[in-house]
Amino acid sequence: MLEKINLKKTMIDAEYKQMTRALKADLSVLQHSLKERKIPVIVLFDGWGAAGKGSIIADVILNLDPRNFKVMSTLDPTDEERRHPFLWRHWCRIPARGRIAIFDRSWYPEVSVERVEKGLSDMETYRRMDNINAFERQLTDDGYLIVKFFLHISQKDQKKRLERLAEDKDTAWRVTDKDWKRNKHYDKHCRAFDEMLERTNTPNAPWHIVPSHDKNCAMAEIYRVLVESIREAIAAADEAKVNPPAPPVQTRPSGYPLVKVPRLEDVRLDMAIDPVEYKDLLKKDQKRLADLHNKLYRQRIPVVAVYEGWDAAGKGGNIRRLVTGLDPRGYEVVPIASPTPDELAHHYLWRFWKALPKDGHVAIFDRSWYGRVMVERIEGFCTEAEWKRAFAEINEFERELCDWGAIVLKFWLHIDRDEQLRRFNDRENTPEKRWKITDEDWRNREKWDQYEVAVNDMLRETSTDFAPWTIVESQDKKFARIKAMEAFIDAVKARV
Amino acid sequence: MLEKINLKKTMIDAEYKQMTRALKADLSVLQHSLKERKIPVIVLFDGWGAAGKGSIIADVILNLDPRNFKVMSTLDPTDEERRHPFLWRHWCRIPARGRIAIFDRSWYPEVSVERVEKGLSDMETYRRMDNINAFERQLTDDGYLIVKFFLHISQKDQKKRLERLAEDKDTAWRVTDKDWKRNKHYDKHCRAFDEMLERTNTPNAPWHIVPSHDKNCAMAEIYRVLVESIREAIAAADEAKVNPPAPPVQTRPSGYPLVKVPRLEDVRLDMAIDPVEYKDLLKKDQKRLADLHNKLYRQRIPVVAVYEGWDAAGKGGNIRRLVTGLDPRGYEVVPIASPTPDELAHHYLWRFWKALPKDGHVAIFDRSWYGRVMVERIEGFCTEAEWKRAFAEINEFERELCDWGAIVLKFWLHIDRDEQLRRFNDRENTPEKRWKITDEDWRNREKWDQYEVAVNDMLRETSTDFAPWTIVESQDKKFARIKAMEAFIDAVKARV
Repeated sequence: MLEKINLKKTMIDAEYKQMTRALKADLSVLQHSLKERKIPVIVLFDGWGAAGKGSIIADVILNLDPRNFKVMSTLDPTDEERRHPFLWRHWCRIPARGRIAIFDRSWYPEVSVERVEKGLSDMETYRRMDNINAFERQLTDDGYLIVKFFLHISQKDQKKRLERLAEDKDTAWRVTDKDWKRNKHYDKHCRAFDEMLERTNTPNAPWHIVPSHDKNCAMAEIYRVLVESIREAIAAADEAKVNPPAPPVQTRPSGYPLVKVPRLEDVRLDMAIDPVEYKDLLKKDQKRLADLHNKLYRQRIPVVAVYEGWDAAGKGGNIRRLVTGLDPRGYEVVPIASPTPDELAHHYLWRFWKALPKDGHVAIFDRSWYGRVMVERIEGFCTEAEWKRAFAEINEFERELCDWGAIVLKFWLHIDRDEQLRRFNDRENTPEKRWKITDEDWRNREKWDQYEVAVNDMLRETSTDFAPWTIVESQDKKFARIKAMEAFIDAVKARV
Repeated sequence: MLEKINLKKTMIDAEYKQMTRALKADLSVLQHSLKERKIPVIVLFDGWGAAGKGSIIADVILNLDPRNFKVMSTLDPTDEERRHPFLWRHWCRIPARGRIAIFDRSWYPEVSVERVEKGLSDMETYRRMDNINAFERQLTDDGYLIVKFFLHISQKDQKKRLERLAEDKDTAWRVTDKDWKRNKHYDKHCRAFDEMLERTNTPNAPWHIVPSHDKNCAMAEIYRVLVESIREAIAAADEAKVNPPAPPVQTRPSGYPLVKVPRLEDVRLDMAIDPVEYKDLLKKDQKRLADLHNKLYRQRIPVVAVYEGWDAAGKGGNIRRLVTGLDPRGYEVVPIASPTPDELAHHYLWRFWKALPKDGHVAIFDRSWYGRVMVERIEGFCTEAEWKRAFAEINEFERELCDWGAIVLKFWLHIDRDEQLRRFNDRENTPEKRWKITDEDWRNREKWDQYEVAVNDMLRETSTDFAPWTIVESQDKKFARIKAMEAFIDAVKARV
């Protein structure tokens, strides 16, 4: 794409001023419309070194209310960041609804610069680009506006700019050996950029290549695109409010191979374990797990385990048996309650991304992102369109975890309706257990049938071959604990 | 303190079980009482390497609901963390009300291990210990319970433990050269620990030295102390609810030298600047500032600037002129609105600690921690006791910023009542400005007199010699912009 760009046009100051006066005023006003409509915006600037990102961003933000935007500088990932999936640090920084995040460099150097300079393989590069496309699509589906600028200058121009920076004693420190090297290998970088621009130029988040040899030209183009994109986003949001699109008839296909899991009504619940045998197995398994935990840590393999199940199915006690004997420095139980206002103001996957463990660590989610297709679906906390596309989003998310090297385990703790009633009553009647039971539990119980439909959909749609569900028959709690623990052990053993 | 500890006593398993059975059950129940009362708890474990922290923590947390606690492992500070005040990373991790944070190592290695191994000076060590005492006092004043354990073993015992770890192939990797060296220099470390324990053994957050040569002895003591401390905290909270202590008559003295600032009624507001001169000065000052910003960055000096002032005094426009020309990668405007529920669930200074810049960067707070002694005081969002001690807490906070090397600037933008009315009316009558004015602004205006008392108190009590207030006469906005900018420039010039 880049070779076709005209890098000759210039614009005199008077023309620039005249062209952008109205655009800047529009931008000032439009930011409040965005805020009112709670539309989150990501504006990202990528491109050649010394193309003028800093001064361009400085110019743009002068038109914005400082209470409403944040500039995100992106440096090379730190060691800590490298111990997470590559999109982790970017997910953590997405803006809340109604806010603007301006990225000074973004996730794109990780599929362009790293490819040329760190020898990222083609396969890994393409995989990352796919991840980026999914990331951006998940955001735009959720109402985010993403505006991507690539600042383009020629090799000659870049060299001249670097020389100018190097000559001034106040800016000389900003020019490093890397910059000179990049200028020298301009062609190689150009090819990497080209492929990146093509593969990630999606309809929902298209690239705007901005010829930046002349600052006036560049700024005029940037203001034009910004105002136009924001206007379109506002019009689309307003239109969707008046004429909400019909929800899709079907769930969005995941694209990943699914494995078969029994439907809940076909699960046998008469399994039990002898209490003496249980005690013995528990002890042995805990010892095995402790050893394996050590190996996970040393081999830097992350584990993400999800516990879902009926209320009173025994999630808490099951998790507790699993972690006994694990080194507390190496695992964390992440309890998931209803989202806080801050969490609600972001994409629903945001809080789960933020809670991911480092490599070598274990995170056990006590409830999880599957709330989207269960409680949020049933209680109407999200729209039909939202939960229908969530299956695919979740599969993409878990695929990224696996690509990063994680072992992903998902347990559905299953009991029947009568057993739940027995346990609820037991909790009501036992003073030390009473805190465990709330009115909400009783209300949820009345919706058992609806949940059963939702759970069956979930099990069917998200049992991918890389992250299948394990149904844990929990009528007998002891049986359930051993089953979950051994599933955990087997999964880890297969990898260390 | 350490040499007096008896490191001989042992306890057989049967006795241990009998002693702790009831304590463990109590702990399980008490955690819910803590949660109900929203008491936040910090339990920290420090002490000798190989004293058994990991397995002790693993034991303790088995009695806790995983939904309610988090284990915080503390490693050596990363490069990123070292670019902040040393307590920064610890402040960021304090628990929310009703939650338990268990620190595996904490802020204490930074006044003991670093002293012995990194040659931290005595002066810096004592300063840090003072900071720690202030940190812990601020938290306990706010209702936090802090329980501090020091696990103590002898040099001989430590050596034996290290040998045992090194012999087992699964644990050998955990023993490093550092550990052997620490064992060899046990005496030196012991002296550093001793002084640390003595100087930070405060009534509100006392140390519990736990002889850890025998795990049963250690665990029994830890459970006893935990249950007792939690019981006391609950009793104190319940008592305070029934018989709230009378608020202090006076504000808590800051202990830092104060400088005199005029009272608001004595501030002359007839200063103005000629518009032509303004344009000229603005341009020159912006250029000077851009140069200085470069120097700040290279010399890694952080700047924390606070903007407070009457509604419509012109904070936004003033900040905007200040940042024009600054490199957006090196500064951030931090807008402060009413706290989110998550922020309310923490100490009020927490959100400001989290928002501190890295060294070399500039953070401009549009409103700030001074809300505590203005809006929160006047609207009754905090108690009288709380705002009366806030002056001292704020002075301590800003002192820590200065000790870290920051330039702290505080601007009070002052206008009179009539001018505010003129600007409010102007906003109401100008469509593009209408978003700037809300009902709340009108309500605040009715409380002008109360605010005037509060602001005068604030200016008097928090104009320390290291972080004095600058009153910016803002009747003429142009005058105000130049005055703030030049105060900024002067402060920076004095340092670079």
